[in-house]
Amino acid sequence: MMAEKNLIILNTVIVTPLGNRALKGEEMNRLAVVSDASIVIENGIIVYCGKAKEVPQKYMKANFKIVDAEGRVSMPGFVDSHTHLTFGGYRPDEFAERLKGRTYMEIMENGGGIQSTVNATRNAHFSELLAKSEWFIDRAVEMGVTTVEVKTGYGLDFESESKMLDVIGSIASNPNRKLNVVSTFLGAHAVPSEYCGRTEKYVDYIINEMLPAFKEKARFCDIFTEKNVFEIEDSRRLLKAAKNLGYGLKIHADEIVALGGAELAVELGAVSADHLLHVRDKGIEALSASETVATLLPLTAFSLKESFAPARKLIDAGCAVALATDLNPGSCFSGSIPLTIALACIHMDMTVEETITALTLNGAAALDMADETGSLEKGKRGDVVILDFDNYNMLPYYVGMSCVRTTVSDGLVVFDRMKNNY
Amino acid sequence: MMAEKNLIILNTVIVTPLGNRALKGEEMNRLAVVSDASIVIENGIIVYCGKAKEVPQKYMKANFKIVDAEGRVSMPGFVDSHTHLTFGGYRPDEFAERLKGRTYMEIMENGGGIQSTVNATRNAHFSELLAKSEWFIDRAVEMGVTTVEVKTGYGLDFESESKMLDVIGSIASNPNRKLNVVSTFLGAHAVPSEYCGRTEKYVDYIINEMLPAFKEKARFCDIFTEKNVFEIEDSRRLLKAAKNLGYGLKIHADEIVALGGAELAVELGAVSADHLLHVRDKGIEALSASETVATLLPLTAFSLKESFAPARKLIDAGCAVALATDLNPGSCFSGSIPLTIALACIHMDMTVEETITALTLNGAAALDMADETGSLEKGKRGDVVILDFDNYNMLPYYVGMSCVRTTVSDGLVVFDRMKNNY
Repeated sequence: MMAEKNLIILNTVIVTPLGNRALKGEEMNRLAVVSDASIVIENGIIVYCGKAKEVPQKYMKANFKIVDAEGRVSMPGFVDSHTHLTFGGYRPDEFAERLKGRTYMEIMENGGGIQSTVNATRNAHFSELLAKSEWFIDRAVEMGVTTVEVKTGYGLDFESESKMLDVIGSIASNPNRKLNVVSTFLGAHAVPSEYCGRTEKYVDYIINEMLPAFKEKARFCDIFTEKNVFEIEDSRRLLKAAKNLGYGLKIHADEIVALGGAELAVELGAVSADHLLHVRDKGIEALSASETVATLLPLTAFSLKESFAPARKLIDAGCAVALATDLNPGSCFSGSIPLTIALACIHMDMTVEETITALTLNGAAALDMADETGSLEKGKRGDVVILDFDNYNMLPYYVGMSCVRTTVSDGLVVFDRMKNNY
Repeated sequence: MMAEKNLIILNTVIVTPLGNRALKGEEMNRLAVVSDASIVIENGIIVYCGKAKEVPQKYMKANFKIVDAEGRVSMPGFVDSHTHLTFGGYRPDEFAERLKGRTYMEIMENGGGIQSTVNATRNAHFSELLAKSEWFIDRAVEMGVTTVEVKTGYGLDFESESKMLDVIGSIASNPNRKLNVVSTFLGAHAVPSEYCGRTEKYVDYIINEMLPAFKEKARFCDIFTEKNVFEIEDSRRLLKAAKNLGYGLKIHADEIVALGGAELAVELGAVSADHLLHVRDKGIEALSASETVATLLPLTAFSLKESFAPARKLIDAGCAVALATDLNPGSCFSGSIPLTIALACIHMDMTVEETITALTLNGAAALDMADETGSLEKGKRGDVVILDFDNYNMLPYYVGMSCVRTTVSDGLVVFDRMKNNY
């Protein structure tokens, strides 16, 4: 098996951000571009990345798998640092009702909304959740994703959250997995119906029962910090408890109202504050002075017909911005990396370079993995996408369409448009 | 070979508009839905389409290829009735410049814009144009397109327009083609630089030299009717000449300013008036009283960050609306059917049913082919897409992502996500 993780990509144009941390503000716009380049991956790790003529001699003779990029662009594999891709059921009819003008409250009253996904997830068998998750992961790999974060949050009780973590863990630890999977515990995604009106009690339940038990299964703890759901004080209490146990922290912040989630994320040293459609100026200031990544999810705003998060303002203020899909069965049933790129560049005024940084190195930083992946540099994981084209400006230009020809994860070719799936 | 065009789709839910003409206004919202259904295709033509238990006995014994849809939706193959997918070169850097705020005029002055594509197309070899066109057609087939219209309009001289028609004709007549191709002559796409300031002379050249010579190669004649390009009088003169020669007519109408292109389309009996972002109330009235299809191209508005065409107003006024991609290297380099669906349903307030009709039967009518394809009915061509799901509301719900599992064109399986490309 090991030998398969030895790969040389020849005749390519390397396009990559550089570094082991999130790039902030103007730094996001700086990409290294190396033409006539080669990338050498040994045992899944990049051991050479640069001009072809300078490849160390020993690799020229090695019996590595060869991919000839024929002049096309190689860039870091995409990092989708915010998804909810494990869930039971689907809600297409609810979506159609919303298109007809039905409000979310009306839909909830008719048994729709997040509680319907919670019920379906609770009732779903492990193997059913696993098969569905793997289907979404296959779609992601086709679009060049090599690292994906997956959240729990549709179980909302000990047993069902545990089942979700086991599904995610099963994918993450599968030796034949196509990409790297990072697990986030989001028990505080919503208050389940059985705790209706007793939010504090539900937070107690999470803190006392779930957090200690799930530590080995989840790298991060996340919370839906929102008015009338988990207020700032609930959030601070839960996240502090998680931090004390050693979880990394993430926050759904300032999505619907300006509650101060961004400020809380910075206060607690969270790796990311996500959504931020209504982030306050104070929140932007706090983010820019911190290492917390501002993770924007334009597919959600697009799907809900809302205004996009203030990407330009965040970057101009010196924040580190990441982009992710938010794939979930309710507000944003989409994992489209190409549409994320189109929205960022066309509708959020991000440059192509900033968008690439946001989907690679800054996405990795939003998972505290910027030293492992997110850029094409010696010592990082062999996570590479080869585009169909020799110019990275094709990414936003080919609107909503994937430019990914080959996906390499951990040094293995996991998707090749020309040879189809592996 | 013939035997391959014999196919039975078992265990499916049929979802289809019905009829041999464009559906107008409220009619667009009516789909036939038949569960526990089968579709029988013989020699490329649908010979049975309905309840599985009523399939004529003779087909049950026939040695046809079987596709078990396992309860998934079958619907008519998509008709992309407006594309410019044959062209030389790409313009990604120009796109990136536009993102940075450069105006189209500035780009033109720097050698960009449509003239750069015209130069690249004139210089391109036939085989290069053919290979590129086929690449786009493969992408279309993966998204469920079974009929595509392709326009000329990047040659703008006799020889180069002729070359483009030969490329399109070569794809259309290839016995191994994956879909049906319809050819449209768009010599009046722009005034080429050598005729700068002499629009009337260029129209004369088209009428006298090109139209008579290209009649056997193109089914339709189209024109870019727009202020300061081809005005209403130029357009009427050219289209009348084309009509007299037997061309069907199409018009790029009211895209940038309200010039009256829609009214002209109706006056001349064009099969379609396309774009219509600025269609006047008089134009809507004229369309609603006619058989001319209003073809909307939301990917273009999305790519240019413009307001969408008034889909709701057109349908409510009783017009027949079609949707198409407008795939072209300048204003809209996208062929995304899933994004077209998302934009129509989420951002143009079209219902899912109207959107399906617009991309199938009404698209066929916009190519004067509603009696051949665009619905699943006995006697029509065996052009079918099988979705990944059992519910057609998944189409807009899975935002920007393709739900197409299998594409059947002329009774042949031309794409199967599970088995990959054919």
